Amino acid sequence: MIHQFEVSTNFRTEMIDITRKVEEIVKDSGINDGIVVIHIPHTTAAVTINENADPDVQRDMTKFMDELVPNKSWFRHSEGNSDSHIKSSLFGCSQTIIIENGKMVLGTWQGIYFCEFDGPGTRKVIVKTVA
Amino acid sequence: MIHQFEVSTNFRTEMIDITRKVEEIVKDSGINDGIVVIHIPHTTAAVTINENADPDVQRDMTKFMDELVPNKSWFRHSEGNSDSHIKSSLFGCSQTIIIENGKMVLGTWQGIYFCEFDGPGTRKVIVKTVA
Amino acid sequence: MIHQFEVSTNFRTEMIDITRKVEEIVKDSGINDGIVVIHIPHTTAAVTINENADPDVQRDMTKFMDELVPNKSWFRHSEGNSDSHIKSSLFGCSQTIIIENGKMVLGTWQGIYFCEFDGPGTRKVIVKTVA
Repeated sequence: MIHQFEVSTNFRTEMIDITRKVEEIVKDSGINDGIVVIHIPHTTAAVTINENADPDVQRDMTKFMDELVPNKSWFRHSEGNSDSHIKSSLFGCSQTIIIENGKMVLGTWQGIYFCEFDGPGTRKVIVKTVA
Repeated sequence: MIHQFEVSTNFRTEMIDITRKVEEIVKDSGINDGIVVIHIPHTTAAVTINENADPDVQRDMTKFMDELVPNKSWFRHSEGNSDSHIKSSLFGCSQTIIIENGKMVLGTWQGIYFCEFDGPGTRKVIVKTVA
Repeated sequence: MIHQFEVSTNFRTEMIDITRKVEEIVKDSGINDGIVVIHIPHTTAAVTINENADPDVQRDMTKFMDELVPNKSWFRHSEGNSDSHIKSSLFGCSQTIIIENGKMVLGTWQGIYFCEFDGPGTRKVIVKTVA
């Protein structure tokens, strides 16, 4: 079975910690040993795993991504968000995480982040556990 | 069992929609509930998931990637395609997609793209469904 | 069951071939047909798949990544390694590889590389085979 939840974003570029939401789904699945796949069904957003302690890391990351991939004058896509599509492919729209003893195997400082690259808006996250 | 198909590319940098090819493999597998792993067995190509509607998105993405990762004068690799190798690692050479009710779980605007970064040529795509 | 091994790095940015280590784990698992998930439990490191023949490719890739993501004067994260966190998310901290006939399905020139972005140090790699 797959699970789905929503994320509300407040800025054009933003990283939102979804670790607890995914942890709950893994726990409720009752799976002891397997993997969990997190999929973002959007083309201007992504999911990444990174530092969960100092919020300055997310601030530096999002600001840098906006600087690395600016809105080029030569972009042709009429919606004006080609930069968001590129950022989505650079970070990737899915993550696969190992489950062991009923819990996700993440490093001490690793959290799962929904990455908004064309907000604000309401977004979906799809999660599937595989035993 | 794994499946394999070929993609012919026409330019040095190009994104080619392979969604239908993968959909057929998923359908033929008869798997109702699981995941599908798409692997590109090349080091100067990649696979990404992005917008399937406006071709200008792929045009903006490929042109931007060539601008972001140019051929640097200090590159030492004798084949002269270090930029292609870097683009491959930035986008990644595999994707894992959820299967639910016999179909891949993709957003409305999501398509699967083979990314050529050192074409033109004939390339392989490997697909494995896991129940 | 999951497996774990350590990697010792010697430079701040470095790519280290871990293909054989993962191959051994896959072989020892006795799994004929499935997938293997490689996870790096660190937020300033990554794992990628790229060229295994000419070491100049890794040299060009690491030097380019340091140039693409420099240490910006406006970074706020007090540990001074926001660039390492960004590189980690650009390459990604996990890879999923297909197993067929007891072996990983990789292209002729593909090797698996642990990517150090904030070394030197001792790092962990977590590997899980799924039948």
